[in-house]
Amino acid sequence: MKKFLNSAESFLPEVLAGLAAAHPDLRVDPAARIVARAAGAVAGKVGVVSGGGSGHEPLHAGFVGEGMLDAACPGEVFTSPVPDQIVSAAAAADGGAGVVFVVKNYTGDVMNFEMAAELAADEGIAVETVLVDDDVAVRDSTYTAGRRGTGATVFVEKIAGAAAAGGADLTAVADLGRRVNAASRSFAVALTACTTPASGRPGFDLPDDEIEVGVGIHGEPGRRREKLRPAREIAADMVHAVMDDRPLPPGTEAIVMVNGLGGTPLSELYLVYGEVAAALADRGITIVRNLVGDYVTSLDMAGCSVTVCAVEEPFLALWDAPVRTPALRWGC
Amino acid sequence: MKKFLNSAESFLPEVLAGLAAAHPDLRVDPAARIVARAAGAVAGKVGVVSGGGSGHEPLHAGFVGEGMLDAACPGEVFTSPVPDQIVSAAAAADGGAGVVFVVKNYTGDVMNFEMAAELAADEGIAVETVLVDDDVAVRDSTYTAGRRGTGATVFVEKIAGAAAAGGADLTAVADLGRRVNAASRSFAVALTACTTPASGRPGFDLPDDEIEVGVGIHGEPGRRREKLRPAREIAADMVHAVMDDRPLPPGTEAIVMVNGLGGTPLSELYLVYGEVAAALADRGITIVRNLVGDYVTSLDMAGCSVTVCAVEEPFLALWDAPVRTPALRWGC
Repeated sequence: MKKFLNSAESFLPEVLAGLAAAHPDLRVDPAARIVARAAGAVAGKVGVVSGGGSGHEPLHAGFVGEGMLDAACPGEVFTSPVPDQIVSAAAAADGGAGVVFVVKNYTGDVMNFEMAAELAADEGIAVETVLVDDDVAVRDSTYTAGRRGTGATVFVEKIAGAAAAGGADLTAVADLGRRVNAASRSFAVALTACTTPASGRPGFDLPDDEIEVGVGIHGEPGRRREKLRPAREIAADMVHAVMDDRPLPPGTEAIVMVNGLGGTPLSELYLVYGEVAAALADRGITIVRNLVGDYVTSLDMAGCSVTVCAVEEPFLALWDAPVRTPALRWGC
Repeated sequence: MKKFLNSAESFLPEVLAGLAAAHPDLRVDPAARIVARAAGAVAGKVGVVSGGGSGHEPLHAGFVGEGMLDAACPGEVFTSPVPDQIVSAAAAADGGAGVVFVVKNYTGDVMNFEMAAELAADEGIAVETVLVDDDVAVRDSTYTAGRRGTGATVFVEKIAGAAAAGGADLTAVADLGRRVNAASRSFAVALTACTTPASGRPGFDLPDDEIEVGVGIHGEPGRRREKLRPAREIAADMVHAVMDDRPLPPGTEAIVMVNGLGGTPLSELYLVYGEVAAALADRGITIVRNLVGDYVTSLDMAGCSVTVCAVEEPFLALWDAPVRTPALRWGC
């Protein structure tokens, strides 16, 4: 294993320590394992909280800040946060108007966020949950009943976060988050496996000339192994998979993300974005906003994912609303 | 070779096509191989231009935009842009007040930018050149007489770009860029070699348990090979190398970048940043601004670099000035 770390045990707290050192706008509580806004909860605003296993940085802690998340609760690498930790995050985010949990659809996360929602309710914090399940690759998977939650999480957190910042109430923020998820589909391809600090070895074996098509963000198997092919064909296949699951009529406007899985350089991501944009243009889809870069990663995995969100009212205005977080920042 | 590409020959134009598709604020001319602001040169403003071999994305094209570069001229992977191409970039950036070339110190770049400066002068464009040579690892290197130019390029481009946006004249912008370079030092460590699309194989061999200490951004050899050690020790060594070259008195304020070389996930970069911040704090250095992420990469190389810029007047105000580029954005 070749990683910058001191020990597998200290990996997460040390990543959080670095995050805290780099971003004074964040309040990182290494004991409670929560990352919140340094300025505290905003009175009267719906809080937006997300979390899940670590190893997907910048997700979720990198999206804490004005116009997006109020708090994040990172679990150990590829391991759900525990209910008490989630409740602490909810408390840090609660401005008296309730809290929305954005939960990627993995069995452990779903269970722990459900328990946390009940515990939070006992403490007088109203919680609504938005489940993200955008990955069309497989119907069920290693850690999931139903589809996995991946790239759409960024779209849900941005748009729901902007709605909360704009004063929407708990039900409205949650409904909007669910609509964004329903409008979004993702598909990923891995060139290499990722290595967790604890295991020290790649999570699966992939021959030098093969790729995993439909891979999950923990290295879960996809639809098939196949020989490495030109990026144009891989991109077209990813677009096909996404559009096959939810056909979009010509003329549809979309927000599109080409997301690196951690070990793929930006140059390749731009190349893939060009191919994805061309494949979508062929189908009459107009990309109105985009993200190209590492947003939902899988440690050091080489690979990328494509997420397409069909724009509805009022997604675009909320997408464009100011955001000020470590990983997404515009308008302020 | 496992990369998202169609062919080695088409790699660069296809990366540029993706960049163009993603960023309507940019005008990408695939034939002339230049990336400029879509809005055109700003009349009366000093133009700031940079370029060099591709493979270091987001450098330089990702820094074109308001408050930073007016144009970039990317060469083939790890290959200098040619003089005509550089002149085209200068013409695209020229608002009548002259153009500053920000040139990383590699023999090919230096030669071609010098020729381009002469050609531009023939066309009536006054040019000043800022040479960046911040990498303290080695005195001369594979492609360099004198120190290599690496991470400080981002600081020079940001601060000189802000000065130009603020109305400084040609001499003032260039002098400021030179001062930023003089105040900056960098050092890098590689965990793996990078693979160029053209060669299809790693640029050097590095055993599974060894790192290259002082590596260059094209995989040039550094000071030594050594066994992989805890991140804390590696970070302390990088800080030592930088501070040994230019000792800074306790109380110095610095802008610090922990930069990923392309294949290292953000989580590890944050961990390293925490260690770097601690090592600098031990020496009484106060980090007043920071960047953590991939800014000056070496294709898919796993590794990172540290850049320390000792703050002088008026670096900080110019650092904080609005910038709106694909890779750096704040204040607008």
